Amino acid sequence: MATETHALVSYPVDSTTFKPDWRFGSVKLLRSPKEHELKIRMVATGICHSDIVVASIPNQPDRGLTFPKVLGHEGAGIVEAVGPGVTAAQVGDPVILSYSHCSECDLCKVDQQPYCLNWALLNIVGEKGHFETQADGEDAPGKFFGQSSFAGTSIVSEKSVVNLKGLVSSEDEDELKLLAPLGCGLMTGSGAVINGAGVKPHDIVLVTGLGAVGMGAIMAAKIAGCREIIALDRVAHRLETAKELGATRVLDTTTTQQNFAEEIQKLVGGQRISVVVETTAAVPVINESLKSLGKHGKFIQLGAPGYGTEITLPLQQFFTENKSFECQYLGNTTGQAWVPVMIKWWREGKFPVEKIVEYFPAKEAVRAIRQMEDGTTIKPVLVW
Amino acid sequence: MATETHALVSYPVDSTTFKPDWRFGSVKLLRSPKEHELKIRMVATGICHSDIVVASIPNQPDRGLTFPKVLGHEGAGIVEAVGPGVTAAQVGDPVILSYSHCSECDLCKVDQQPYCLNWALLNIVGEKGHFETQADGEDAPGKFFGQSSFAGTSIVSEKSVVNLKGLVSSEDEDELKLLAPLGCGLMTGSGAVINGAGVKPHDIVLVTGLGAVGMGAIMAAKIAGCREIIALDRVAHRLETAKELGATRVLDTTTTQQNFAEEIQKLVGGQRISVVVETTAAVPVINESLKSLGKHGKFIQLGAPGYGTEITLPLQQFFTENKSFECQYLGNTTGQAWVPVMIKWWREGKFPVEKIVEYFPAKEAVRAIRQMEDGTTIKPVLVW
Repeated sequence: MATETHALVSYPVDSTTFKPDWRFGSVKLLRSPKEHELKIRMVATGICHSDIVVASIPNQPDRGLTFPKVLGHEGAGIVEAVGPGVTAAQVGDPVILSYSHCSECDLCKVDQQPYCLNWALLNIVGEKGHFETQADGEDAPGKFFGQSSFAGTSIVSEKSVVNLKGLVSSEDEDELKLLAPLGCGLMTGSGAVINGAGVKPHDIVLVTGLGAVGMGAIMAAKIAGCREIIALDRVAHRLETAKELGATRVLDTTTTQQNFAEEIQKLVGGQRISVVVETTAAVPVINESLKSLGKHGKFIQLGAPGYGTEITLPLQQFFTENKSFECQYLGNTTGQAWVPVMIKWWREGKFPVEKIVEYFPAKEAVRAIRQMEDGTTIKPVLVW
Repeated sequence: MATETHALVSYPVDSTTFKPDWRFGSVKLLRSPKEHELKIRMVATGICHSDIVVASIPNQPDRGLTFPKVLGHEGAGIVEAVGPGVTAAQVGDPVILSYSHCSECDLCKVDQQPYCLNWALLNIVGEKGHFETQADGEDAPGKFFGQSSFAGTSIVSEKSVVNLKGLVSSEDEDELKLLAPLGCGLMTGSGAVINGAGVKPHDIVLVTGLGAVGMGAIMAAKIAGCREIIALDRVAHRLETAKELGATRVLDTTTTQQNFAEEIQKLVGGQRISVVVETTAAVPVINESLKSLGKHGKFIQLGAPGYGTEITLPLQQFFTENKSFECQYLGNTTGQAWVPVMIKWWREGKFPVEKIVEYFPAKEAVRAIRQMEDGTTIKPVLVW
């Protein structure tokens, strides 16, 4: 039995401009939850940079990537129905949605779910037969990140469900609305600092790029008591917000030299930068941050580099100073493990998500995306 | 009171050829142990590639590096005297010598002693006033790696001492002789696999270069039960030894294409290579091994690259496959923690050091070094 709902649908991109074609409109949700699936009424959905990256990929039917498609992977909502075998939540439970994983591959079995060997299939490719657009009657696959939460109602994989019963108010949906973005960007940034880098109070952390991932990293570094937290961006108001969240030093790259490694050293009086959390994926920023990194420093790449990007690694110096370069996903953790940790921090006032979230009615999704792209909004959240 | 002994002394290199100038001869050990020092009668000393690397550095007095100098950092011996405050060992105890560290810096305090912020000072620079060469009466610094064990008797830092009382026979020095090389190369290789990579039975490990470090990695990967262990070298008898130690596949680079990544894939039927332990520091080997590395693979650089070496990192692919590149030292552990582990393995027959060790009388040190360089001998051990 089909459900009438609304969705933000991504249409095939023009293969010369690669510019996403987002359209908000009515869709039919075509089916009920099958085994280990839940039907979720979405309350809110955060928009993440990865949504835009995926919406920019041309149709690649041989890799299972076809558009139109319903993206969205920072959903929060209420369980409306459960399929057979579901134990994660019951009808009426408030949930946050995170990524999916298989639980069965070599990497899932050793608690490396962000690196699941079936990750692309379960999170990027999605599944046909979920939505039908009303404008043109086309099939729009669902289960993007196991959830396709750019829709008022969606069929979701149990693996994506983080049950918040008892953790957030069941009557008042405002908490759920605010916490929607915990399932991806904020988890990625804060988890990288705590789980990935394992920072200690002696660490000096440089965070490049102040979207939600960078801001999550800054809040986590403050929680861990890091000696200095340096925030780097080119948008002044983001740097101001970073200070409020815990940055002890800021560097505005619009007012600095292209070669900013030296300036970073000056900011901390020549002390050793021990961790870089890189979220921009811009090669000049990566190169200068690598130069800034001190002895036995960890460079953690979180921003997704563009197609074909290469960097030159100064291997001898890198070895002499025993550095490491790691590409990390999703905070080296799962939504089930990490969302409750972030909610606890938030209740204690240490993870003030409200300082970076801006709400938009779902039908204004295209404006919300534009404001994220131009730097005005750090974390747009669509309200359904 | 001076002690007459013998030592292998490194003299300043010719700054056009950078060829080490080793000379074996009589030296005076000028003093007794001071606070937290021990006087050790050396039984045997392993020769490690790093000895040759350091012996190739021209005099750099501004960085505290001067020659002549007594190198050697895989010593084993018997305590002859202890200075004030020493608790690590008593007169008569058999000991193995490993690297030194300060125990006080940010990194030592969080159990990252191989990355001690005072590492170069304590391990490379050494200390004047230890030895005087009899041939020309020059001062030859000691305390290289806290030990300068290319000498019949040496004054050693307590931090370098691993007490083997109760772990090896006190009457028969043969065990001590055989186990001498545990303090550096074998610890580096085996520790990288167990502590650094944290391998699991599902891992497929590629080890490039079959010196003592590579062989240590192979034995450890076998102990950890890794699914496949691939050994790569250009010396046929080393590949044979690698098979005896646990390699399940071998690749002889003298009989293969320069671009061997594909051949490695074929060897394991296209399975995912999850760990590379790189000991050659040769850029073509690094590049091909990086290509071989599969999703979420760890690349661990153990071989020290030459001055100015750079590599091109295919960042987008590296990120998409969430790989990491780490430069690790000394097995991410200490001699005090790891040598007893290796001795236990050796007693259980799982770490057959005897298959790679070849003894040389100390006075034939130059021949021993030559045989290590040309690949004939895997681990030469000087007997004093």
